[in-house]
Amino acid sequence: MSKNTHALDIVILSKEYAAYKAALETYTEPTFTITQATDDPLQIDHDKVRVMLADPGLAASIVDKCDNLQWIQSGWAGNTPLIKQNKRNYVLSGVKGVFGRQMREYVFAYLLYFARNIQAFYTAQKNEGFNKWNKPEYGYLAGKTLGICGAGSIAQSLLPVADIFNMRVIGLTRSGEAMTGYDKIYTPDQKATFAADCDFLVNLLPDTPDTHNFFDKSLFQAMSKDSVLINAGRGSAIEEQALTEALNNDNLRAAVLDVFRQEPLPDHHPFWHHDKIIVTQHTAAESDPKDIAALFHHNAQRFIHNKSPEHVIDFDKGY
Amino acid sequence: MSKNTHALDIVILSKEYAAYKAALETYTEPTFTITQATDDPLQIDHDKVRVMLADPGLAASIVDKCDNLQWIQSGWAGNTPLIKQNKRNYVLSGVKGVFGRQMREYVFAYLLYFARNIQAFYTAQKNEGFNKWNKPEYGYLAGKTLGICGAGSIAQSLLPVADIFNMRVIGLTRSGEAMTGYDKIYTPDQKATFAADCDFLVNLLPDTPDTHNFFDKSLFQAMSKDSVLINAGRGSAIEEQALTEALNNDNLRAAVLDVFRQEPLPDHHPFWHHDKIIVTQHTAAESDPKDIAALFHHNAQRFIHNKSPEHVIDFDKGY
Repeated sequence: MSKNTHALDIVILSKEYAAYKAALETYTEPTFTITQATDDPLQIDHDKVRVMLADPGLAASIVDKCDNLQWIQSGWAGNTPLIKQNKRNYVLSGVKGVFGRQMREYVFAYLLYFARNIQAFYTAQKNEGFNKWNKPEYGYLAGKTLGICGAGSIAQSLLPVADIFNMRVIGLTRSGEAMTGYDKIYTPDQKATFAADCDFLVNLLPDTPDTHNFFDKSLFQAMSKDSVLINAGRGSAIEEQALTEALNNDNLRAAVLDVFRQEPLPDHHPFWHHDKIIVTQHTAAESDPKDIAALFHHNAQRFIHNKSPEHVIDFDKGY
Repeated sequence: MSKNTHALDIVILSKEYAAYKAALETYTEPTFTITQATDDPLQIDHDKVRVMLADPGLAASIVDKCDNLQWIQSGWAGNTPLIKQNKRNYVLSGVKGVFGRQMREYVFAYLLYFARNIQAFYTAQKNEGFNKWNKPEYGYLAGKTLGICGAGSIAQSLLPVADIFNMRVIGLTRSGEAMTGYDKIYTPDQKATFAADCDFLVNLLPDTPDTHNFFDKSLFQAMSKDSVLINAGRGSAIEEQALTEALNNDNLRAAVLDVFRQEPLPDHHPFWHHDKIIVTQHTAAESDPKDIAALFHHNAQRFIHNKSPEHVIDFDKGY
């Protein structure tokens, strides 16, 4: 068999199906025969699904019926919808390494926004009947402590930026083992001490049973009153009522929330209406379909050579 | 004479006189005999002024009467008030190397603010009668071009941050000579081409006759309609009316202005009231008095050994 003769039948089930299809058609080894490309699970011919590039939210509704399924490449960072299904006799590979660039722009945009107190400058400028030149208070990232919950590959992308702004970085991980680039690593049972040590606390924890309600009253009460929480991990990590109360009690300065228990976050949800909460509509790290297609192609090359794809999800661990 | 016996009589004339005094009293070689420390030029005994650490705005009113003056260490980045005086038979040394850390937090705070479209997210959240989950458009710094006018020491501090965010950096300098870290260097006569090549244009030009009204109609008209101007150099660089018109005509997206021809900027000035202008009350790079005191001490060591202080200002060039 010559090197350039592999072909792979695949199904695409994603809101990005058109972009994925366009990107995948440019590859030659393997070439992809796209038997179906849709964003509608009802259109899928279950028996034909052996290899699928899919949004977990869409694939979850049909995966149990796909008896010939061997491999799903997820297009999302979060795979909870698939992990919750009974079916586990297939390989689910996740997405890594494509969110870091976006995530660090998101995180540092809001870190600098709060350090520089940009909103206060905006308000001072708009305020009438006032000496506008009176400058609001503001500060710097230099010397401040950035705490990261879930010190994995996305967190890794924050480290060089924190370093260049002369920030101290601490982490919280399951093992608590020392990691390069972190001044200190805490364990989950030290979460109050960890929270107290942060000027900025960024959550990047994956959605696992252990991380549900990790951000609870005990953690919020430990935070410094000038500190800012950024949740770019999973919505389930935050006890919503406890966060609202903590903000009302000035336990922390503000919260920037990208992810929620219920998405879309309903218009009547109190988070939209709280003046210390910024909502960013799950935009912190949106992957470029081209990046996902390239990852799928890379894994497809492994698949046709009977190798395991990279970034396989462990159904028990949930990541 | 043993190494540790130098003493230097000095006068401090600054709004920061108390902080400077406290910092300078900690030094031992030389020790400083502070004959006067005040923020009021009227209190100064002119004949006693030989060496002075001063705010240029305060020193300007008395410098012509100080016949024994040998050296002024400025506490500011901009020395125009002193350069405009007739008296030039003394050494005026400026401040370098202490503004970079602040400036880069300021510049990248606003670069990320606009790239991430933070204000649009804020507005969407506050907007009622609307599907709040509809996300505003936003983008990234990665791949964008940062243009810097005045590629000196403060500009230098922006380069590693631009690099880490995967930005392209171009510069505009008098000589147009290639510089490390810049993809391209333009000369002043190429300013329209330079402006057209920028997604973000940061002015750090010093206040010299050559830079007056450098940002004029011809430059603004060349800018890209999505581009953002940040003026953290000098207010005189901008032709105010031309900027307002350019913003009204959508020649550029927005302007962030830290410095002005008249400071404080009067409350009635149109810049305060323009919805595409952000005013930041000359706060982009405020030096820490301790840093200025350390620089003064360093230069005082040189002075007592009959060496020229570092960062001497050329009265003709103006920097």
